[in-house]
Amino acid sequence: MNIEELASRLLNQDKRALARAISLIEDGGVEARALMKRIYPNTGRAAVVGVTGAPGVGKSTLVDGLTAYYRQQGLRVGVLAVDPTSPFTGGAILGDRIRMQERGTDPDVFIRSLASRGQVGGLSRATGDSIRAMDAFGKDIILVETVGAGQGEVEVMRYAHTTLVVLMPGGGDEIQAIKAGILEIGDILVVNKADMEGADRLVRDLEMMLDLGPESPWRPPVMKTVASRGAGVAALAEKIEEHRQYLISSGGLDRKKLDQVSSQVEEIVASSLLAEVMSRARAAGTWQEVVDRLSEGTLDPYTAAEEVLSRHGLLSEEG
Amino acid sequence: MNIEELASRLLNQDKRALARAISLIEDGGVEARALMKRIYPNTGRAAVVGVTGAPGVGKSTLVDGLTAYYRQQGLRVGVLAVDPTSPFTGGAILGDRIRMQERGTDPDVFIRSLASRGQVGGLSRATGDSIRAMDAFGKDIILVETVGAGQGEVEVMRYAHTTLVVLMPGGGDEIQAIKAGILEIGDILVVNKADMEGADRLVRDLEMMLDLGPESPWRPPVMKTVASRGAGVAALAEKIEEHRQYLISSGGLDRKKLDQVSSQVEEIVASSLLAEVMSRARAAGTWQEVVDRLSEGTLDPYTAAEEVLSRHGLLSEEG
Repeated sequence: MNIEELASRLLNQDKRALARAISLIEDGGVEARALMKRIYPNTGRAAVVGVTGAPGVGKSTLVDGLTAYYRQQGLRVGVLAVDPTSPFTGGAILGDRIRMQERGTDPDVFIRSLASRGQVGGLSRATGDSIRAMDAFGKDIILVETVGAGQGEVEVMRYAHTTLVVLMPGGGDEIQAIKAGILEIGDILVVNKADMEGADRLVRDLEMMLDLGPESPWRPPVMKTVASRGAGVAALAEKIEEHRQYLISSGGLDRKKLDQVSSQVEEIVASSLLAEVMSRARAAGTWQEVVDRLSEGTLDPYTAAEEVLSRHGLLSEEG
Repeated sequence: MNIEELASRLLNQDKRALARAISLIEDGGVEARALMKRIYPNTGRAAVVGVTGAPGVGKSTLVDGLTAYYRQQGLRVGVLAVDPTSPFTGGAILGDRIRMQERGTDPDVFIRSLASRGQVGGLSRATGDSIRAMDAFGKDIILVETVGAGQGEVEVMRYAHTTLVVLMPGGGDEIQAIKAGILEIGDILVVNKADMEGADRLVRDLEMMLDLGPESPWRPPVMKTVASRGAGVAALAEKIEEHRQYLISSGGLDRKKLDQVSSQVEEIVASSLLAEVMSRARAAGTWQEVVDRLSEGTLDPYTAAEEVLSRHGLLSEEG
């Protein structure tokens, strides 16, 4: 199938074309690039909601609950489960597979997992482009779920318009919550498993931390859910919509989208330049020579970079 | 203080010079670069041990226990607590501050935390360079502790010679352990809080997962500790030494060091090229023009990157 055909099938809501598109995006080759250019004009309509938090807090169950809620509203849902680490099992998220079987029968739910393939920035690009592919396909809501609580998650969450940070009672003391450090990126804080002991205390602690945080026109609300039985999910979905309306009216949504696309341009520029310079340095034997001297310990990395740049990275004068 | 003076004080084990050096490294300017070049020949001697795992499993306590153990052996210890997220509190790890007070009186323990400052790759570079600064200073063992379980941690852990992945019983079911996905990077798996219920079951599950994993000449041992009372720490330290001897005899240590320094060269090349091209694109007004069209939605990021590259990123012919 050529790119033109793939694009038009995707735009006609062919699920297999969407799956194929995301596989191309994961591979990250020239075809993915051509596809993204082609479908770009059809993007920008979907609401993108990020769901992050430490392992075990119930992110997947919450995403399931939100999916069920949105389906009841007649909305078309895409779920992207992003794993910034590459698990033992070779790239697929086990829990995701289980869910996929459950919801896979609903034609208006598309679930896909993305795993890191090792290149820095590769997963971030793949996430952004997969969201766009789902958006162009016609999804109304795209839920992006991540695992863990690190830089990878922060990277991934910059594609979300609204980010939910999910916590649970008793998952460690308050210092742990601060150490997890992801509160800062949350537009809505969700205390899941709120029927467990300590839920009210956690809510109070979070409110106190928000009191200490910088003032902002949007103060992140703290919502309680018991996702395993759907409790609090509708109220959460309303808050998500409220945040979206706030973003639209404040101009924040356009700003977020522009920030996101601008950094993507920078990423593409940086990786293209690096690929070109490295390919030249390898072809000319400079790279091997540098590696040999690094290996002997007679060259430091900064001087090595300067040598590579001065021999192969010289930029032309302004053209 | 100029760089030459700072370097010689650092090499003479002046703790304040080391602290100042790491601050310079965090800032990431031209001075840090000069310093790193200057002290590079004095690096390469320290053993670097990474400690990672989900929040709440007791990484900090374990690092404390290992520090106490190594001090008893008369070794000089550096601890680098790396937080790939930037917490609410503005960059310092609370728990780290508490520990700092406790151990800060030992002149042969140097503890420092590093937090993300937002630039992609910035923390990774700062981590690598801070380890080198501690190494040049004369630390025998450098313990690098991270928070969370994402791409950031994987990035940080590539500087470690031996990586401990810390888990605890009852921290979620086995699927969570797989989802955390950090087992793959562990040279030693540590079941901490091993006096809790379910510890033996977790050990068995981990051994079973290792059975399923790829064969390797080094099968990660699963060690039990109760770090809060020092139990199992000496045995763990022996395993760490065993892994180091394995790395040395198999040539893996040299290979790790070379991989790490080569990727650092690539990072420096990429960020230098990007900075140069972006500065040209900004000065010439191309960037503003591109941003305007991105904002209107009339330009996609791939075409935008191509335009920037073709106007400002042209590489010279081989020189």
